[in-house]
Amino acid sequence: MTPTDSILRGYLSDNAAGASPQILDAVVAASAGPAAPYGNDALTAQMRAKMAAAFECELDVFAVGTGSAANGIGLAALTRPWGSILAHRDSHIQNDEAGAPEFFTDGSKIVLLGGEHSKIDPDELRAAVKVGVGDVHSVQASVLSITQVTETGSVYTIDELRVLTSIAREAGLRIHMDGARFANAIVALDVSPAEMTWKLGVDMLSFGATKNGALTADAIVCFDPTLATELSFRHKRGGQLTSKMRFQAAQLDAYLTDDLWFDNARQANAMAARLRAGIADVAGVTVTSEPGSNIIFAIFSDELTDALHERGFGFYANRWEAGVVRIVVSFAHQATDIDEFVAAIRELA
Amino acid sequence: MTPTDSILRGYLSDNAAGASPQILDAVVAASAGPAAPYGNDALTAQMRAKMAAAFECELDVFAVGTGSAANGIGLAALTRPWGSILAHRDSHIQNDEAGAPEFFTDGSKIVLLGGEHSKIDPDELRAAVKVGVGDVHSVQASVLSITQVTETGSVYTIDELRVLTSIAREAGLRIHMDGARFANAIVALDVSPAEMTWKLGVDMLSFGATKNGALTADAIVCFDPTLATELSFRHKRGGQLTSKMRFQAAQLDAYLTDDLWFDNARQANAMAARLRAGIADVAGVTVTSEPGSNIIFAIFSDELTDALHERGFGFYANRWEAGVVRIVVSFAHQATDIDEFVAAIRELA
Amino acid sequence: MTPTDSILRGYLSDNAAGASPQILDAVVAASAGPAAPYGNDALTAQMRAKMAAAFECELDVFAVGTGSAANGIGLAALTRPWGSILAHRDSHIQNDEAGAPEFFTDGSKIVLLGGEHSKIDPDELRAAVKVGVGDVHSVQASVLSITQVTETGSVYTIDELRVLTSIAREAGLRIHMDGARFANAIVALDVSPAEMTWKLGVDMLSFGATKNGALTADAIVCFDPTLATELSFRHKRGGQLTSKMRFQAAQLDAYLTDDLWFDNARQANAMAARLRAGIADVAGVTVTSEPGSNIIFAIFSDELTDALHERGFGFYANRWEAGVVRIVVSFAHQATDIDEFVAAIRELA
Amino acid sequence: MTPTDSILRGYLSDNAAGASPQILDAVVAASAGPAAPYGNDALTAQMRAKMAAAFECELDVFAVGTGSAANGIGLAALTRPWGSILAHRDSHIQNDEAGAPEFFTDGSKIVLLGGEHSKIDPDELRAAVKVGVGDVHSVQASVLSITQVTETGSVYTIDELRVLTSIAREAGLRIHMDGARFANAIVALDVSPAEMTWKLGVDMLSFGATKNGALTADAIVCFDPTLATELSFRHKRGGQLTSKMRFQAAQLDAYLTDDLWFDNARQANAMAARLRAGIADVAGVTVTSEPGSNIIFAIFSDELTDALHERGFGFYANRWEAGVVRIVVSFAHQATDIDEFVAAIRELA
Repeated sequence: MTPTDSILRGYLSDNAAGASPQILDAVVAASAGPAAPYGNDALTAQMRAKMAAAFECELDVFAVGTGSAANGIGLAALTRPWGSILAHRDSHIQNDEAGAPEFFTDGSKIVLLGGEHSKIDPDELRAAVKVGVGDVHSVQASVLSITQVTETGSVYTIDELRVLTSIAREAGLRIHMDGARFANAIVALDVSPAEMTWKLGVDMLSFGATKNGALTADAIVCFDPTLATELSFRHKRGGQLTSKMRFQAAQLDAYLTDDLWFDNARQANAMAARLRAGIADVAGVTVTSEPGSNIIFAIFSDELTDALHERGFGFYANRWEAGVVRIVVSFAHQATDIDEFVAAIRELA
Repeated sequence: MTPTDSILRGYLSDNAAGASPQILDAVVAASAGPAAPYGNDALTAQMRAKMAAAFECELDVFAVGTGSAANGIGLAALTRPWGSILAHRDSHIQNDEAGAPEFFTDGSKIVLLGGEHSKIDPDELRAAVKVGVGDVHSVQASVLSITQVTETGSVYTIDELRVLTSIAREAGLRIHMDGARFANAIVALDVSPAEMTWKLGVDMLSFGATKNGALTADAIVCFDPTLATELSFRHKRGGQLTSKMRFQAAQLDAYLTDDLWFDNARQANAMAARLRAGIADVAGVTVTSEPGSNIIFAIFSDELTDALHERGFGFYANRWEAGVVRIVVSFAHQATDIDEFVAAIRELA
Repeated sequence: MTPTDSILRGYLSDNAAGASPQILDAVVAASAGPAAPYGNDALTAQMRAKMAAAFECELDVFAVGTGSAANGIGLAALTRPWGSILAHRDSHIQNDEAGAPEFFTDGSKIVLLGGEHSKIDPDELRAAVKVGVGDVHSVQASVLSITQVTETGSVYTIDELRVLTSIAREAGLRIHMDGARFANAIVALDVSPAEMTWKLGVDMLSFGATKNGALTADAIVCFDPTLATELSFRHKRGGQLTSKMRFQAAQLDAYLTDDLWFDNARQANAMAARLRAGIADVAGVTVTSEPGSNIIFAIFSDELTDALHERGFGFYANRWEAGVVRIVVSFAHQATDIDEFVAAIRELA
Repeated sequence: MTPTDSILRGYLSDNAAGASPQILDAVVAASAGPAAPYGNDALTAQMRAKMAAAFECELDVFAVGTGSAANGIGLAALTRPWGSILAHRDSHIQNDEAGAPEFFTDGSKIVLLGGEHSKIDPDELRAAVKVGVGDVHSVQASVLSITQVTETGSVYTIDELRVLTSIAREAGLRIHMDGARFANAIVALDVSPAEMTWKLGVDMLSFGATKNGALTADAIVCFDPTLATELSFRHKRGGQLTSKMRFQAAQLDAYLTDDLWFDNARQANAMAARLRAGIADVAGVTVTSEPGSNIIFAIFSDELTDALHERGFGFYANRWEAGVVRIVVSFAHQATDIDEFVAAIRELA
């Protein structure tokens, strides 16, 4: 491993972790014997059934290799090119996908909303859904995209979600959820997947698995059966229909089996909470993000950041405001890792 | 396994096979410890170096999940939207990608050329490069896309390739190679990767690995360094920049190690040759495709096809002309598999 | 006027003519006083009513500046990006728009059909509508695009149209008519606009006026009211919603008034017939196109072509096959013009 | 004329006016005789020469039918799809084109900047050009788009422009100017076209003529000759290459002749100034926009707005903030019109 990898110690992002052993085992097992290509295999069918069971409804699942593809393809099925996607100004679809949503949607516009802790302010949403309705000179508000867990680690409560989805529904918008850290939110809220999605009116979910234990498998989960055909073509045409789909199905299937997804997410969230608790009283360190998930934003002095980096603790600093650092804890972190990190912060602060 | 899978016996396509053990081992090994995301990890660097060594030149590599993505993104970097892509009318980019090249290129046109055995006729190419040059009403011939191995299993000789690439080069076109079965062609011709690509003027290669032993990893290999930045953005924006890139790097790295790619391809080609030899003299069976690779096209009676399907031998029939069947042999097939299939054909014909 | 213009004598294309006086007068008159912009003016409303009366049905009209825009926007409303547009290989949308249909449709594919005299062969259409139906790897046949008058001057009979539209309808395709020379076809067949369009199942018409007397005004005429909203956004977003729409409305309104469109088309067709008759018996001259419209294809010797060009008669030569010339007669040509041209041909042949 | 038109009295927008008589005369004159199509005619050549003379440099001109097309096509030539366009949050390209820039650019993102009176704040620009540079996850700041006259009627001084263009140039951005009311700005500043464009580093100008006297003719004026070929294809492919281009050339040619464009703009600006002066001291009326151009924003009571509307004075109200009205004066307004309007306001306020 190069220094690039070795300094990480895994707080740069939850995607710096490897994969869960159960998922690796499933991938290896899936390799035995021939299988029908392009998702027409038994394992893909089994995975679909497990996903439907997990969400307690009929649904369509399309495995993808990245969250960017899940978001891009899912959004494209929810809006026409002259539609707009209402999203928080901190959202991943706006800031971290190099314009992938605009590419997949043939040029839809992302309209930005504000709100504390990266949660959309309902009043801003109420105003935005009224802009230019029916005016041919204006893009038409078409989709509300909610990021749950948010980019800064906060978790919308079910009530907060309901307020937003109600406004969107009443205005005729579709609802998309960017769930790159979906399981982390589920366990944080202690609700069912159904309660956090279709029961609130969510049409389309970018179901993240990679950050929480898979290798390279996320999924588009669609609760509206009328979009299935369109999605299947967008998925193929978008370069996401793998020939050996069984290998992605294997990952998602194992992820959904025996509560692995919840266990992994609980571990990540718990370790983040342990870290928060460990540094709460450190002079010169201020945690700024809401608790709940596996992401912590804090203010560190440059000296502290540099010293920790030198010790090999990897995390992003100074990408947002000066002094702001982001620490992301993954399912792979253990209490000893956290305690070591806490001790270093306490020592060096 | 469902009947859908069990009837296959693997001749439907080479993507019906699982993965090579060496590649599975590499994936499992890659999971240990943290790694920098998005291709900034050591394993990806190592894979890039191996690819460069294999091609004996500087190059850029972008791992992708599908050949459709490799073709779409690679072509998009070679042509502006008003350019055209000259390709054989049997080509995969025309017939099997639901318009992915048009999507990724923002609407370039694929201009179709004919030629025996799915090989582009040089005279048709010579005529096509002259159509509408400089005429603002016409798309501008911009890329020659060559499929090697072709869709019907033939293999261009180096001389045949040189004729085509010379015509294209003289006319100012870029050259793309769809190498979904690249290794099968290399071993069929017994040439080096360099001799079959950049030494002939190929700018961009869709480097297939999935059909020949990987799980879900192909690659865009680009021999023109001026396209690297554009490709990196198209790759991200196209939803192909996986966060845990190490898992795709691991597949490609193992694929390139200890001649695994060549060994697998030799096995597939040899087993196909064994099958051809075994059925060459069967009355009522006519092999129509050229020898060399791992794909066989033949004419079977419907009775024979049905009888073989009933026995559980999976292959496509009647998708092209009536009576035409396609049999694809993979690296996973052994002599006993082939002999069993030959025996069944001889018995049932 | 430069030599470029002076040599024309107007046979290069019917768009080499100026505008009808009635249309110029209407434009000037429309300039008086203020008017609501973007088509919300009285003149646009009046034009829409005249168009509806001319077609004897409810319809939507969107004025555009070019036939390319009419075709691109109209087709985009008829097919999703993964749909294909079935069209004759001689069609304007394939050969003369630099990929505009692919641009406006976000990358739909034009699938080419053959047939004598640039008319689609019904058997080829029957085969094409069956290709890859429901197969996610294949584009889905979605639109039949018929050019009437065809690119080589032939005119489909109503029966011929009905055969094609019936095949398309039964297969679930939408029907587009590229009517750049719509009026020429109407008067050639002596049918009503309704009989040649919606009564046959045509959904969308590119209604040409520019070549037959307008300045820069064509129109998208849509017979399916469910597409109106989509068209209005595509029209705006495609840069075709002019602020002073009254000036395009004035052109189309005058065009539809007092049978101007039919009178102009009759004149053009009649003058073409006069030309055909005048050169029918000239040794060394072979007219190859079908009679009926205002376009004549013929075979001239290079000597004859050169001599005529030197005399200042402008027409295209050697753009198709060697020796093939195209002569297009416009509404502005008079019998004396034709007789002069005929005399020159007879003298120089 | 319908009530819709009659209530206007022309303050809704400057596009509610008809065309200048000189331009109408030129259009009529252009109709005589044949002319080469698609801009290969003498009049188009003459217009190009006049435009070059007006700007005192070599340049390329592409006539278009709308400002949306000028902006969309011009921007598409300045940025790759993963580039971003930095523009004021009040800009027309963001709010009034239904996503046309995103359509023409294949999904570029418009990044919004603030600033008083719809003028971009240099500090916001300085910050924006640094965001995500070289980061493959982020769109790349590629174009600065400046609206001159701004959407709220203010006019950047040359010094203000120079500050912005210098920041953009130093950061490697291209510079686009949306000059829908270009002449109004020129006469307001009393500078030459060259001084307000290429001498400041402007690469591409959306040259508005329609609002200031033409019928339906604006133009893309490009100061970078390396973009000419790309523009010609984007112009064709975007449905803007009219066959009878002479009619658009005639408009632009007359517009540039004998200072018509400046005279018209001076008239509009002067009449707006007369209106401002006339209502400056009216109790209950507050003019909020900067002087200089032909657009006035003010705060009217709803009673005043309603009363004026009833009298037939047309202007937009309550589209921005409550109470805010926009009055746009055109070249066609005369002092008597203004005095009548002023009198009504004074009477009814």
